[in-house]
Amino acid sequence: MKTDVVILAAGQGSRMKSALPKVMHTLAGKPMLQHVIDSARQLQPHGLHVVIGHEGEQVEQAMANQSLSFVWQREQLGTGHAVAQAMPNIDQESVVLVLYGDVPLTRPDTLEKLTQIAAQGDLGLLTVTLEDPTGYGRIIRNAVGDVVAIVEHKDATEQEKLVREVNTGILALPSAALHEWLPRLSSDNAQGEYYLTDVIAMAAEEGVRVRAIQPEAEQEVQGVNNRMQLAQLERWYQRQRAETLMASGVTLADPARIDIRGELTVGQDVLIDINAIFEGEVVLEDGVEIGANCIIRNARIGAGTCIEANSMIDGAVVGEHAQIGPFARLRPGTELSAGSKVGNFVETKKARIGAGSKVNHLSYIGDAEVGADVNVGAGTITCNYDGVNKSTTRIGDGVFIGSNSALVAPVDIEAGATVGAGSTITKTVGEGQLAVARGKQVNLNNWPKPTKKES
Amino acid sequence: MKTDVVILAAGQGSRMKSALPKVMHTLAGKPMLQHVIDSARQLQPHGLHVVIGHEGEQVEQAMANQSLSFVWQREQLGTGHAVAQAMPNIDQESVVLVLYGDVPLTRPDTLEKLTQIAAQGDLGLLTVTLEDPTGYGRIIRNAVGDVVAIVEHKDATEQEKLVREVNTGILALPSAALHEWLPRLSSDNAQGEYYLTDVIAMAAEEGVRVRAIQPEAEQEVQGVNNRMQLAQLERWYQRQRAETLMASGVTLADPARIDIRGELTVGQDVLIDINAIFEGEVVLEDGVEIGANCIIRNARIGAGTCIEANSMIDGAVVGEHAQIGPFARLRPGTELSAGSKVGNFVETKKARIGAGSKVNHLSYIGDAEVGADVNVGAGTITCNYDGVNKSTTRIGDGVFIGSNSALVAPVDIEAGATVGAGSTITKTVGEGQLAVARGKQVNLNNWPKPTKKES
Amino acid sequence: MKTDVVILAAGQGSRMKSALPKVMHTLAGKPMLQHVIDSARQLQPHGLHVVIGHEGEQVEQAMANQSLSFVWQREQLGTGHAVAQAMPNIDQESVVLVLYGDVPLTRPDTLEKLTQIAAQGDLGLLTVTLEDPTGYGRIIRNAVGDVVAIVEHKDATEQEKLVREVNTGILALPSAALHEWLPRLSSDNAQGEYYLTDVIAMAAEEGVRVRAIQPEAEQEVQGVNNRMQLAQLERWYQRQRAETLMASGVTLADPARIDIRGELTVGQDVLIDINAIFEGEVVLEDGVEIGANCIIRNARIGAGTCIEANSMIDGAVVGEHAQIGPFARLRPGTELSAGSKVGNFVETKKARIGAGSKVNHLSYIGDAEVGADVNVGAGTITCNYDGVNKSTTRIGDGVFIGSNSALVAPVDIEAGATVGAGSTITKTVGEGQLAVARGKQVNLNNWPKPTKKES
Repeated sequence: MKTDVVILAAGQGSRMKSALPKVMHTLAGKPMLQHVIDSARQLQPHGLHVVIGHEGEQVEQAMANQSLSFVWQREQLGTGHAVAQAMPNIDQESVVLVLYGDVPLTRPDTLEKLTQIAAQGDLGLLTVTLEDPTGYGRIIRNAVGDVVAIVEHKDATEQEKLVREVNTGILALPSAALHEWLPRLSSDNAQGEYYLTDVIAMAAEEGVRVRAIQPEAEQEVQGVNNRMQLAQLERWYQRQRAETLMASGVTLADPARIDIRGELTVGQDVLIDINAIFEGEVVLEDGVEIGANCIIRNARIGAGTCIEANSMIDGAVVGEHAQIGPFARLRPGTELSAGSKVGNFVETKKARIGAGSKVNHLSYIGDAEVGADVNVGAGTITCNYDGVNKSTTRIGDGVFIGSNSALVAPVDIEAGATVGAGSTITKTVGEGQLAVARGKQVNLNNWPKPTKKES
Repeated sequence: MKTDVVILAAGQGSRMKSALPKVMHTLAGKPMLQHVIDSARQLQPHGLHVVIGHEGEQVEQAMANQSLSFVWQREQLGTGHAVAQAMPNIDQESVVLVLYGDVPLTRPDTLEKLTQIAAQGDLGLLTVTLEDPTGYGRIIRNAVGDVVAIVEHKDATEQEKLVREVNTGILALPSAALHEWLPRLSSDNAQGEYYLTDVIAMAAEEGVRVRAIQPEAEQEVQGVNNRMQLAQLERWYQRQRAETLMASGVTLADPARIDIRGELTVGQDVLIDINAIFEGEVVLEDGVEIGANCIIRNARIGAGTCIEANSMIDGAVVGEHAQIGPFARLRPGTELSAGSKVGNFVETKKARIGAGSKVNHLSYIGDAEVGADVNVGAGTITCNYDGVNKSTTRIGDGVFIGSNSALVAPVDIEAGATVGAGSTITKTVGEGQLAVARGKQVNLNNWPKPTKKES
Repeated sequence: MKTDVVILAAGQGSRMKSALPKVMHTLAGKPMLQHVIDSARQLQPHGLHVVIGHEGEQVEQAMANQSLSFVWQREQLGTGHAVAQAMPNIDQESVVLVLYGDVPLTRPDTLEKLTQIAAQGDLGLLTVTLEDPTGYGRIIRNAVGDVVAIVEHKDATEQEKLVREVNTGILALPSAALHEWLPRLSSDNAQGEYYLTDVIAMAAEEGVRVRAIQPEAEQEVQGVNNRMQLAQLERWYQRQRAETLMASGVTLADPARIDIRGELTVGQDVLIDINAIFEGEVVLEDGVEIGANCIIRNARIGAGTCIEANSMIDGAVVGEHAQIGPFARLRPGTELSAGSKVGNFVETKKARIGAGSKVNHLSYIGDAEVGADVNVGAGTITCNYDGVNKSTTRIGDGVFIGSNSALVAPVDIEAGATVGAGSTITKTVGEGQLAVARGKQVNLNNWPKPTKKES
């Protein structure tokens, strides 16, 4: 049976104290709502209905081009009312799974189980057993274990208050039942809202089985109402990622000090020192070592390469057995071949650097094509920008660039050429040529030393 | 009624293993004693009496100019003796609040409550209920809840040992009573010391009510005797600051990895990544983003500005929507206008940089006034020091400084001028002029390549 | 009586998912097996026998030249079989202590106690009391407290399962007994292996006392089977190191954020900010301050010196009251004299820098001898490499090097000399001379400004 997922994302989230809609706050670098969408997507649903309201335009815009069906809830009249807004787009022959944009970490497996229950005509309810259930709606089961009621904390008897299994609000059920029950919800309660939870009672009344399942971890159903909760969930999520990495054979210097905000793919025997941050899509091949405090985004690092401490890599491809850092910054468009070295206080951008070449110190290599076995001296700058245009510096194989040189692009330094230290190169240096472009040294014996001025 | 605060700060603190007096060790960047003084100050006390002894000169000097009354306790004969040293400076018509220089985090609210009790003629005692009270003096209360005695652990019956409420030593009482009781303290005990605690028994004896209150958190009354305890309290304090920040609407990537050593004022929707350190007075306006591992001291960062990872800022003012870092270092006297950029491996000091101007790479800009829409190329150095004097570099609006240039101050680069890459500029460049100051390039075909020397 | 230590290091450790033998995985920068060897070495054993198997060549090679006796266990037939491989090298008059290469943190004191028991003719067994003993062999003691049996979890009665004291496998006993018992071990069990543990039953049978002792901390006997356990043990170990440091009088900003991978020796009143990493042998003298995120390896830092944040030091000696960083990188062979300064984005390597000299910004000083009271301007590069040879730059006392200079080694700048900013120096600058080597500045009024090109 097909599935329609309804994600409630209309709430204001005033306790976030933010101009951003609550569901747009990020966890591990991704909006909470996107986490929910991505998990729901794994069910290959027929429809993904996102109910928006507060700052809904922002949500709609941020989540555009994802084949989502946005439904407006103009007035916030409760969860039942929210789901009802989506129902006109859902036919009778579906299973409806209700999720929440501020409950970001429910596992797809868990969702799958709920929809399977609903596909059998029952109501699948996600519950959780809490150490301290105070404030939550308690799950009342019958002798065979089916749920027969949810009793709100304030209405619970002393006996019922002892129940530690509580409602999470996440449920799946046949759309036909939901089409029938939603119009019968009442707002005759203290808040004047239509509660989706009331369908549980209707199901029980009408003899529809309510079967509850529980998530593997409590955090799967944890909602975020403020930034403390967001941080707690972030930390739990990162710890899970760290555990998964270690189980797959990565050594982490400190599992409490790694942040993965995207997809990190690792080979065998990868070592990651403290405080690493990974963002976007990062691939670390076999034996890669990541030093302390590195930040790596959208990059592929070849086998055996060592990224020394305090390096930042963004949008780069690094070959095997390269050596990067410390204090290196590779910016987008950097491609380093096998065995190359980029050292401290070096920035690269749109730069291809050939096998075995070295840029060891204090350089800026931008818009450059550097051959193999090139030595770029300390303090070398590719002058790629004239204030209007960006131009390319081409450096052939085996070139030696003396320190403190400026290479004014567009310019070619052909294979085997040498640039004398301190030169500003503006014209082609031919193959094997030595280019020098600097002033002649003059030593003066009697000269007026600077003296202290009045300040 | 007026209040006199007596702060005991004479102890040696030998378990700190330090040449520094214990109370001078810092928590969140501020001496413990200063925390106590700052909290006490909020009561607007009539007098603030600091009893010093061990390395007292150091304390006196470090805390000078704060309108404190320093009192020497030459011999360390117990807390009662310490307070007695301050009494000659306190008249009969006051409330005396006794605090400890190594108990840094008692909240002003808590202190206020104690003095209010004393202002009513009673003795206000701060107690705390511990999970494990072993070793502490137990609080014995009567039927109406007033304290009637403090029983030391070694003297306690089995019944009394079950009491988990213990004495903290912090108390407030009318000065008249204290004037009367202190001379009656006895040193006839194992340590041969005069214990302030004994005034509780005197109060009970004389029918003065002893009313106990408790702090909100146990850490408010935690004393520091060694560096483990100092670190524990530091971490608790930082966690509190992190919670407060999050409650006010700041997103923290990891509440366990932020250090605030001073005053941090934040706007809405500020994001702070891991390992940030804030020192002194820092203001982050709306929407500011602080990347990982940034250290920011005495700075104001304008709305929408992004400080990328691994940047250090000290004594700088940054305008709105600026972009700083990564690996940028702004030193004191830096003023960046709106929309400006300071990039990687750039140091600024006493530098005003105009709106929209960019210093993107590997530069030192010191003692400089840079206009708007200026592009400072990679590797540019303002040569501000001749070994004796510091001089200023002035760069007009719209100037383009080619890469690897040295600007020898004092020098003016007037509006719209261009400096060719690799130039060393020593004289004024006029408006719109192009200045070039570099050697002419010579390419040599046949030249003796370096050969391997014997080493 | 002499001691022979047998360390079992033959296992595959498949749950590590590694190409490296399990015992070669590092904890605090040192292979687990090396930890065991180093602890065992403190007993001054007669022989140190390491039983290798899986990837044994790697182990043998990595641990060469340590006077170890490597013994191959070609088939992995259990711990009893493993120990048996070493017995031909151990005579009858010794105590045998059996350790495990994947149980890295047993304290030498604990090992000493075990061997003392064995030296008295008894069997010394290391046991540990666990919160949850599920799965472990329970220790059954008789009325006088001697161990009479170890009952495996699956064979235990309900009563026996209540025992929380379990076997660690670490034991010591007279070699004569072991020589007699090992051949009697049977592999008639589910795994078909020879279990060393079975000697306990033999001892009990033959009236040899089995005396159990316990370690101070559970982690002393914790084995590592996967990278989660390795990380847990690493963190516990680092916490212990942090506690020890604090107890000795070091202030740590955060005891959870320091990593010590080697030997760290500290003077009085050392302050260490967050995220410090120490590797190899590091000495911090009195009053040294280490800023946040510093990485220091094999270095001695003189009294009163401040290493500012984000600095990396490797193989350097720094004098007293020097100032390093932030963002400084001192590489091997750096020697800084008292009162010297190395500032941001500066790299040094094989460089001696004299007292009071300053290299404050954006420089590379390699293969250099710099005198006292020298000022090296921003952007200075020692051009120490011509593509083939490394050469030395010598800078005399009191020299002033203007910013953005290149010093082409080998070259001498004699005492009191001055180098003009932007110069490329290739020849000796005599005492007191001013050397300038740069192009003459030309200002052009009418010149073709760059225009936007089609891209």
